[in-house]
Amino acid sequence: MLKNWNPEEIPPKEEIKERLDKARARLYKLQMEIKEHKVPVLVLFEGWGASGKGSTIGKIIKNIDPRFFKVATMSAPTEEELRRPFLYRYMKQIPEAGKFTFLDSGWMEETTKDCLEKELSGEDYTKRIESIKRFERQLTDNGYLLLKFFMQIDHKEQTARMERLLQEKDTEWRVGGFDKWQNEHYKKCCKVFDRYLTDTNTSTSPWYIIDALDKKWAELQVLETMVSGIEVAMQNSAHSVPLLQNVFPLVKVPKLKDIELADKTIEDDEYKVELKRLQKKLGILHNRLYRKRVPVIITYEGWDAAGKGGNIKRITEALDPRGFEVHPIASPEPHEKARHYLWRFWTRLPKDGHIAIFDRTWYGRVMVERLEGFCSENDWRRAYNEMNEFEKELSDWGAVIIKFWVQIDKDTQLARFTDRQNNPEKQWKITDEDWRNREKWDLYEVAVNEMLQKTSTTYAPWHILESVDKKYARIKALKIVIEEIEKVLD
Amino acid sequence: MLKNWNPEEIPPKEEIKERLDKARARLYKLQMEIKEHKVPVLVLFEGWGASGKGSTIGKIIKNIDPRFFKVATMSAPTEEELRRPFLYRYMKQIPEAGKFTFLDSGWMEETTKDCLEKELSGEDYTKRIESIKRFERQLTDNGYLLLKFFMQIDHKEQTARMERLLQEKDTEWRVGGFDKWQNEHYKKCCKVFDRYLTDTNTSTSPWYIIDALDKKWAELQVLETMVSGIEVAMQNSAHSVPLLQNVFPLVKVPKLKDIELADKTIEDDEYKVELKRLQKKLGILHNRLYRKRVPVIITYEGWDAAGKGGNIKRITEALDPRGFEVHPIASPEPHEKARHYLWRFWTRLPKDGHIAIFDRTWYGRVMVERLEGFCSENDWRRAYNEMNEFEKELSDWGAVIIKFWVQIDKDTQLARFTDRQNNPEKQWKITDEDWRNREKWDLYEVAVNEMLQKTSTTYAPWHILESVDKKYARIKALKIVIEEIEKVLD
Repeated sequence: MLKNWNPEEIPPKEEIKERLDKARARLYKLQMEIKEHKVPVLVLFEGWGASGKGSTIGKIIKNIDPRFFKVATMSAPTEEELRRPFLYRYMKQIPEAGKFTFLDSGWMEETTKDCLEKELSGEDYTKRIESIKRFERQLTDNGYLLLKFFMQIDHKEQTARMERLLQEKDTEWRVGGFDKWQNEHYKKCCKVFDRYLTDTNTSTSPWYIIDALDKKWAELQVLETMVSGIEVAMQNSAHSVPLLQNVFPLVKVPKLKDIELADKTIEDDEYKVELKRLQKKLGILHNRLYRKRVPVIITYEGWDAAGKGGNIKRITEALDPRGFEVHPIASPEPHEKARHYLWRFWTRLPKDGHIAIFDRTWYGRVMVERLEGFCSENDWRRAYNEMNEFEKELSDWGAVIIKFWVQIDKDTQLARFTDRQNNPEKQWKITDEDWRNREKWDLYEVAVNEMLQKTSTTYAPWHILESVDKKYARIKALKIVIEEIEKVLD
Repeated sequence: MLKNWNPEEIPPKEEIKERLDKARARLYKLQMEIKEHKVPVLVLFEGWGASGKGSTIGKIIKNIDPRFFKVATMSAPTEEELRRPFLYRYMKQIPEAGKFTFLDSGWMEETTKDCLEKELSGEDYTKRIESIKRFERQLTDNGYLLLKFFMQIDHKEQTARMERLLQEKDTEWRVGGFDKWQNEHYKKCCKVFDRYLTDTNTSTSPWYIIDALDKKWAELQVLETMVSGIEVAMQNSAHSVPLLQNVFPLVKVPKLKDIELADKTIEDDEYKVELKRLQKKLGILHNRLYRKRVPVIITYEGWDAAGKGGNIKRITEALDPRGFEVHPIASPEPHEKARHYLWRFWTRLPKDGHIAIFDRTWYGRVMVERLEGFCSENDWRRAYNEMNEFEKELSDWGAVIIKFWVQIDKDTQLARFTDRQNNPEKQWKITDEDWRNREKWDLYEVAVNEMLQKTSTTYAPWHILESVDKKYARIKALKIVIEEIEKVLD
């Protein structure tokens, strides 16, 4: 029996029927309100094998228009998924605003299974729980409704159900190896489940334990909890949440105005020699990375016309095209905008052993989105911590994270803009927006300084590339990339 | 050094000065907004001895109008306070809407001190943490802004400060016995503090660790965190929170319509004999309660004219007047309404060994407040759990809780109303409001049934008093009170 759970008595059949009709009708209505209020709803079903997770989901979705929901059955992670951070395959599944996703088991099953198979304990378990709590908090902080159900049946019931399933050829396959193991070690599993439920029971995404002995009663409990959860969520529009104190070790980054640019130049001859030498070295390291399965994430932010494109090119020239990808980041597409703002970056993460280069990044949240009012003040203020948490996740996974800020002064930008404007071949590179952004230089400078200061963690520090002399910046970038990769390969 | 804390580098003096001016001005303005938005702000200062809790509070309040704040220095609990539940003296201090309370150390210091003095460990510690988390969640769920600061100095700094204080006659007294002990066992304390900070760090009331080495820098950190916390709170009006699943064991209570009233009568002669016998017995038990220091809380709810007053009278007749108090509960006064709705009940709790009788109770939240719309739907739906938690606190403290629902039928009420109306001596007992409430009988019945079902816990169950025959109800009440008290005295 689970601790801290006190099942209600099962009501009479008549009452269940009556309440089911009411709850179904209510959910049917609420799906339209969800859509209107643009609330994304993630419904997680965890629980014992043979407790009826799948069949309950099957009944719930009958009340929802097929355009508004998706069901994802999360079996064991695939080879591809195992090569990404633990949360990757769950983050991929989060619904867009106004829609439902139902998960047939998720991060609880994977975690408790890892515990039971002894792969996860002590410090590692604590770390996993922290990472799960952050993930769930990031969802609810960003307006997600997260409903977590645990389907409970006792040992006797589980045994009976499994025997019934195993007797028939048609249903035999539904009892997996882990289900059998679970049934044989019910008490041990109960302890692990109990601890997990306690450790992850928070006020913003609490657990609901469902008495799954009777199928109709189980359905009713789920329906009524969903209805009540949705109704509460509907009452809140754009809720602000407390800003958390930074818990990650930071390294100092200079303010933009204190960055010396004038003497950061390189002679043409030296540039050519160095470029060749460093690119060769990087090429060799790329192979070693691949074999050692170390993922690398390189990100570029910087002023318009600072020379990001050319800089990235000098890196990629050195790499095996089968082992890297460049992601140019523009404004989000509608389907991206409808999800957690980090979703489009989570889904672009490299496999281990691969390099992903981001030309502009998640830091748009605290620059353009902040300055243009595309998100609320609470959103961007909260984002510094969310990004540190995101990068912590990547770093714990084993990724090398290299973040560049490409720096030029205002005069240099003007010269390059003018050059682009006057040169027919380069005119595509300059838009009215670039000129408008330039007018906000000072505001951007404040935002960039705050970003550099608050997100330069020891595990993902910012590197400044002085780029008035673009060649100097390219050599410096190559050197840093090589140095950071060597650190992890040694 | 505390885990999960990464102090920022102290900024240059010039910058601190500039930011201080800005933050002070901002706080000065925000106090008016706090007042307007009716947000209550509880600021808790915890931290090492000699870390400057008091002096920092002293500086912060200079920016706030004296009418809007209160400072409470929580030294060791008094004899009177020790005779009440742990949280009693903190609950007493919570601010009213639109005002600040600053606490110079609080439930963290008391708890960690108990840990260090070995009085609190294992299960008891876990229970204490749970109770603290519930307390803090109840505050934030009910619209309180709770800001928790921990003032951090290292061992060397603490030693130096204490030495300085001890050298002067004028300041010597400021170093207490526990401060000295703390300094001698710095590492051990650090461990206990660390665990407490981790265990109680939630997303709705997170900890802010203040680097208190430099006084101006400490003041700035506190000010800026306060300003940001208040600004976030201002953005939210009437926020709804998820409803939690009940975790407390419940006992079954019949629905009102299924309560048999007709045969619940008693003959006059028998009544007189029984009344005498039971009252005598209760009187004796009252003395034993007093000596054993067991607190008793008896609560009455029921229909208008059900006979609550006469029933209470038959109880109190048996008691020593120095050992009980009756609290008639009407609509809350303005100063009560301005606080957490349970505040006026917390502050009326009996000392151990005493009996408190409540004529109407906190359950008004889910009856009159629900039906008259005096609170939001989220408020009253959440209240079932809040009351179970409140009573759990009382029960863990050792209190006997006896909750009565005094039941009559609609016809009986009409007869008694009419009798009151027609009898000049009783007319004061009947008001227009009674007649209006009577019209809502059916709605009340739904609310009462839900209340009985959701708040009848094993540690604080509801007892039904069938009161068409008032004498029967009085005898039954006396018997239940005696039985419940005997259970705990045996």
